[in-house]
Amino acid sequence: MNIVIAGAGAMGSRFGIMLKQAGENVILVDGWQQHIDEINQNGLKANFNGKDVTEFIPAYNQNDLSDVDFSADLVILFTKAMQLDNMLQSLDNMLGKDTIVLCLLNGIGHEDVIKKYVDYDNILLGNTMWTAGMEGPGKVTLFGNGSVDLQNLGEGKEDVAQKVADVLTNADLNARVSSDILTSIYRKACVNGTMNGLCTILDSNMADFGDTSVANPIVQKIVSEFLAVARAENVFLDEEAVIEQINGCFNRETIGLHHPSMYQDLIINNRLTEIDYINGAIVRKGKEYGIPTPYCEFLTQLIHSKEEIVEAK
Amino acid sequence: MNIVIAGAGAMGSRFGIMLKQAGENVILVDGWQQHIDEINQNGLKANFNGKDVTEFIPAYNQNDLSDVDFSADLVILFTKAMQLDNMLQSLDNMLGKDTIVLCLLNGIGHEDVIKKYVDYDNILLGNTMWTAGMEGPGKVTLFGNGSVDLQNLGEGKEDVAQKVADVLTNADLNARVSSDILTSIYRKACVNGTMNGLCTILDSNMADFGDTSVANPIVQKIVSEFLAVARAENVFLDEEAVIEQINGCFNRETIGLHHPSMYQDLIINNRLTEIDYINGAIVRKGKEYGIPTPYCEFLTQLIHSKEEIVEAK
Repeated sequence: MNIVIAGAGAMGSRFGIMLKQAGENVILVDGWQQHIDEINQNGLKANFNGKDVTEFIPAYNQNDLSDVDFSADLVILFTKAMQLDNMLQSLDNMLGKDTIVLCLLNGIGHEDVIKKYVDYDNILLGNTMWTAGMEGPGKVTLFGNGSVDLQNLGEGKEDVAQKVADVLTNADLNARVSSDILTSIYRKACVNGTMNGLCTILDSNMADFGDTSVANPIVQKIVSEFLAVARAENVFLDEEAVIEQINGCFNRETIGLHHPSMYQDLIINNRLTEIDYINGAIVRKGKEYGIPTPYCEFLTQLIHSKEEIVEAK
Repeated sequence: MNIVIAGAGAMGSRFGIMLKQAGENVILVDGWQQHIDEINQNGLKANFNGKDVTEFIPAYNQNDLSDVDFSADLVILFTKAMQLDNMLQSLDNMLGKDTIVLCLLNGIGHEDVIKKYVDYDNILLGNTMWTAGMEGPGKVTLFGNGSVDLQNLGEGKEDVAQKVADVLTNADLNARVSSDILTSIYRKACVNGTMNGLCTILDSNMADFGDTSVANPIVQKIVSEFLAVARAENVFLDEEAVIEQINGCFNRETIGLHHPSMYQDLIINNRLTEIDYINGAIVRKGKEYGIPTPYCEFLTQLIHSKEEIVEAK
């Protein structure tokens, strides 16, 4: 199968390596030239559960694909949310009427971007529990186990979803076809939509925020906005269960002392955040459905203000 | 006239000194023992428009007023908003049925606290444009000119307001009776209700916040909540004029590079803020009148969360 890994960061590299090892015809597309050069010259290197491996997988800069002749059967999306549109534009020549696109990005509403480039029926949404770490250009660390849940957006396209799941599972990526992927995606978005923005704007780890007397009221307001929008899309989540999962982030013995990824992006690395694809997506969808989302809107605005104040890139 | 200055910080000291110089019978009540001791031992010292003056004014700790026999004709309130209730409780023995209370605190809704201790008809609300600086225990700096606007809350009590204005003006404090003090108070609260909380939570000066693309939409949302609550109290402000005044804070050539007082309190000095008496007051009043105030509520919660995270005192 001709597979494009669109976004060859840590996670994209994992999928690329494992699919290549399973015999698929894989190419990597990314925007980081140093990483691309290193892969093309010396191969993509990974410490893979303690063993050093090197896979030679063609890597291309997304801004320089004019000479590349590759007809994609499957595109797996791993870009940052704000790079998605540009990436799909770059890949346009590789996309045919049967190309399947599997979106494994965090956040919600990416299908609205993807459907500008491929048939809605050819879009799969997924969630992955795999992890991966970037060591430097051309080098990643891959430990532990994971899985992928995915689902077809198009009605009656379960066979397409199953086929992609089979390809991934054949590469030991443990994929299964889900019947409620939007529930998983919204549940994850509720965690990200509270912890990410709040800990970033408060300059706090998750446990310290969770210990404040207003943590619960704030979390409830934000979650209720997410769930109202989800309901409008016929996705029904149990509010108590979602809040319990978020409260799990406050536990100092497990992950509570960590700062969420948005904090790493903006406060530590001065990078633009994915807020528009988490809380911002709820605001956009809320407007569409006539649902007020003031907490998501204010949080999105505060994060954008912070991005501009620190001149994030 | 027997006058209690309740809260003898920089501004309270200014009023105390000027009223004493005009021949009034003044006492100071405060919670800072070192300041009180210094005043009682060496007098209250001021650099007053470049001239060093010392006034001997009796100063008392609010927690130790049991032996003090003073029947107040006028109490001028200068405490921090969150200390108001405690202060009035401490002063209870000095308050008679004719005692007038003039409130010069920032923020809104203080009359709801004051009316627990004196007749509503005896309450005056005011706004002052005087400034003052605290140099250390027993020492203040007083420069420039100012004025006081004040108004009776009780219907037909203009004579009471005029009498107090006369006493203040006789002490060169330039007081006048206003007929729309709530308009001034709400206008000032709109400036504080945007600049204070936002610059504090974003760790920003006013100009840098003002330059961000979301400053205007955020300011508009917050101001519209203030103005809706004001309307419910028959106070009518011009939204455009209020927003223009706020935009004036963004000017780098004048005050834009400054951090507002709440930032000084919380971020620099690790002190609890007055947010409950600015945005928080709008939330309380909004609930009372059935007006949604999500931006004020979220901002109040974020500031409280920050107070707890940095363990402000």
